[in-house]
Amino acid sequence: MENAVAEKKPADYGHPAQARDASEGAHWDDEADVVVVGLGGAGACAALEARAAGASVIAVERAWKGGGTSAQASGQLYMGGGTPLQKACGFEDDPEEMYKYLVASCGPGADEEKIRVYCERSVEHYHWLTGQGMPFKPTYLPVEVGTDPATDDGLSYTGSELAWPFCEIAKPAPRGHTVQQEGENAGLLMMDLLLANVAKAGVVVMHDALCEPLIVDAEGRVVGVVAKQGDQERCLRARKGVILTAGGYIHNKAMLERYAPVTRRVRFRLGCDGDDGRGIRMGMGVGADAIRMEAACIVVPFSRNRQFVKGVLVNEQGQRFCNEDLYQSLLGEIGMWRQQGRIWLVLDDALYEQPQLPTEIAAVAESFEALEREAKVFPEGSLVHTMKIYNENAKRGVDPVFRKEDRWLQPLDRPPYVALDLTLEKYPFWSAFTLGGLHTRPTGEVLDADGDPVPGLYAAGRNASGMPAHGYNSGLSLADVTFSGRLAGMAAAKASD
Amino acid sequence: MENAVAEKKPADYGHPAQARDASEGAHWDDEADVVVVGLGGAGACAALEARAAGASVIAVERAWKGGGTSAQASGQLYMGGGTPLQKACGFEDDPEEMYKYLVASCGPGADEEKIRVYCERSVEHYHWLTGQGMPFKPTYLPVEVGTDPATDDGLSYTGSELAWPFCEIAKPAPRGHTVQQEGENAGLLMMDLLLANVAKAGVVVMHDALCEPLIVDAEGRVVGVVAKQGDQERCLRARKGVILTAGGYIHNKAMLERYAPVTRRVRFRLGCDGDDGRGIRMGMGVGADAIRMEAACIVVPFSRNRQFVKGVLVNEQGQRFCNEDLYQSLLGEIGMWRQQGRIWLVLDDALYEQPQLPTEIAAVAESFEALEREAKVFPEGSLVHTMKIYNENAKRGVDPVFRKEDRWLQPLDRPPYVALDLTLEKYPFWSAFTLGGLHTRPTGEVLDADGDPVPGLYAAGRNASGMPAHGYNSGLSLADVTFSGRLAGMAAAKASD
Repeated sequence: MENAVAEKKPADYGHPAQARDASEGAHWDDEADVVVVGLGGAGACAALEARAAGASVIAVERAWKGGGTSAQASGQLYMGGGTPLQKACGFEDDPEEMYKYLVASCGPGADEEKIRVYCERSVEHYHWLTGQGMPFKPTYLPVEVGTDPATDDGLSYTGSELAWPFCEIAKPAPRGHTVQQEGENAGLLMMDLLLANVAKAGVVVMHDALCEPLIVDAEGRVVGVVAKQGDQERCLRARKGVILTAGGYIHNKAMLERYAPVTRRVRFRLGCDGDDGRGIRMGMGVGADAIRMEAACIVVPFSRNRQFVKGVLVNEQGQRFCNEDLYQSLLGEIGMWRQQGRIWLVLDDALYEQPQLPTEIAAVAESFEALEREAKVFPEGSLVHTMKIYNENAKRGVDPVFRKEDRWLQPLDRPPYVALDLTLEKYPFWSAFTLGGLHTRPTGEVLDADGDPVPGLYAAGRNASGMPAHGYNSGLSLADVTFSGRLAGMAAAKASD
Repeated sequence: MENAVAEKKPADYGHPAQARDASEGAHWDDEADVVVVGLGGAGACAALEARAAGASVIAVERAWKGGGTSAQASGQLYMGGGTPLQKACGFEDDPEEMYKYLVASCGPGADEEKIRVYCERSVEHYHWLTGQGMPFKPTYLPVEVGTDPATDDGLSYTGSELAWPFCEIAKPAPRGHTVQQEGENAGLLMMDLLLANVAKAGVVVMHDALCEPLIVDAEGRVVGVVAKQGDQERCLRARKGVILTAGGYIHNKAMLERYAPVTRRVRFRLGCDGDDGRGIRMGMGVGADAIRMEAACIVVPFSRNRQFVKGVLVNEQGQRFCNEDLYQSLLGEIGMWRQQGRIWLVLDDALYEQPQLPTEIAAVAESFEALEREAKVFPEGSLVHTMKIYNENAKRGVDPVFRKEDRWLQPLDRPPYVALDLTLEKYPFWSAFTLGGLHTRPTGEVLDADGDPVPGLYAAGRNASGMPAHGYNSGLSLADVTFSGRLAGMAAAKASD
């Protein structure tokens, strides 16, 4: 038998992750106590805290301007446990309830230790953010209006806190804190504020510089990084540590195929161009462990028109598969992992309003029998039965099957009925970004396959595996990003030279 | 704010994976062209092929005897494409049909390249195995009798080839080839044969020797391994390469928590004591990439009594969620990832026979209405409707909902009815082993995070990520183990010193 399997390197991994040995013609072009790789949300917070602790900092950013994916975000941060904003809006909260909710809604695989630390320090984190100049308007956006405010309201539900089963697991409170700005891109404002503070704090920022690879000494300690500006290579020495804050890997198809084949199916990828997994692979190149790499935030936004939560979601068998008031990112997780992206939304004439979802109508009909037939998907009698049971219960104001909250329960009894096609193939708004990354302690110290720290290396934001795994709530990424960035900055600044 | 997060190392990772530098007091106690770490199925095949190619081989085994998890297996190998056994039993098969089936049933995340190579060479592999003395009795075990023969029959279906949707994707053929032996542990016979050949071939075998860690030279090439026998440490030099064949990681709870939180929930873990992930972590310690670490074979064996396939599986909502004739390992994948381990089996008096499944009876009743009530799980009307539709269709010999094959379709209309509790909490036979591992080419060359080979390092069997990911068929592990072991042995033997 021939052993001539074609030499085939997986496509498009990107640039080398393999570390360089410091002894190979080591010259240092510049040096600082701490070098931050990537100046998005995590990098900015890491740089600020490292400077605040007295460390000198160089931050290297591949783009002409910092911001990264955080600058594209809606500016929501998941915070709670009794923040001033929660109190100002009249809501009670408790770190323990927040902890219970996050562990339940972010798992299996939620990082309970990181969640514990975050919940205990969330109020302090809020004060730190406002101390950076971040405005939060003390107004609450009711859940009937939405979760992802295009208004400038500060507080809203950005998860499934009110929905079953979570409402029975932890006392609900709205925890989405949105930086005050009209429109949907308050993340840009957040980053502009942080970047202005970075500049003021005396962080040395290199723009248009791509980091590759890390530099290690003979003992395997990370002592610096190579930064390339055009053809020019600059070796940056980090006396105390390098902090990797270069984002997730949603834009690296080869990595998605290897690590996250389910997420790979989602076409709309959330992230800036820099989310190519480089930072994660740089860490792996010095022995760091990457964990929960299959995990992703998968979103099916279907309820911008809040009336649609009163609709009925069904799978290919014409069965309901969850309560429709689950948050859109948990719906995405469920819709993809449990229903393989094959879901439809049934509405009646009372619910079907403009603006409609930009997708195909699978069927319109005067009866559920006809709807079922016309859709040519559901087995005979299946959708009819689902709607019969749903309507009978909704009339009584109950949902014994999935316990959708009363406020969303009403019979669908005004024909014509419509089935909207929300399948992965047809509905273009399924979207995703990766959650897996380097294994870190809450401090940001990067761990190897044995669970021991890689000396001199820290990671934060989506370069690290954060709080959530198989479940997500909006605002958790900016929470992870800002908080883990801060802790990594503090830890690196405190490290011995 | 304090940054005093407790120093907490994840528990029980096991022994160090960090490689040793060859320059650190390097003395070699022994040397060979190829050193094989772990003498289970993959290790034995690797050693045999390396010797056949003229290489000298040392094989290191932690136990007093080789065999590993392969020796605990049922001795089924998934092979096809027209093997002599298939032909002798009157079945036609084709490598292309086998390829289409495996890609569909082993994904998302199936390794298409490995599947391609395996399907093309499966007949040759069969001849190699019989050349090793492995007997396959040319008799076919009908699907109505079972898939996992306690008889000595050679050929059987060990997957979902006949079941929808796979029967429409590829032309079915039975591909489970079981080593001839009465009883269920033909894997032991297979390993006894292979180990006898290993001894005859002049492989130097070290028993009771735990390998840790790998030894690398200044260029990062793997040049050997440390083997510990009691307190004594022996440094083994590998002139051409080290082959890691030390099994999966189902018995390392810390690794399961980090990488496979869903699989962590399964209590019955399939594997020998050595399946602690050591080989995978040794690879990671020299920069190897571990991929699809969340993937596992999860099995719900419920159809040893084949009549039970005629029963109806339902979820917590009283809904069917798949065709009951799917193979037990695909049922496990679906039952865990899509139904969170919450499933029940409904039978009628015609089907309910001894031997019964060793689990709790959720309810027994004279009508489905009463069964639904008594089980105290299903929403009102849900199970009743499911059974009504199922029975109406079964009477007509069709299953438009999940297209269960005709042979398993009969109405459940003979009371009393019973609902058996197959939930993860109650049914003890849910079982699992891990599928994720080091990223390798089909040749066994281990790849780093960039997709480049780690010089001097090979992996096979469950130390590597093999053909299947999110879907499994019985016999694929021994197929992966024996075939990938062979290829790794050949590749290492051909490497330059």
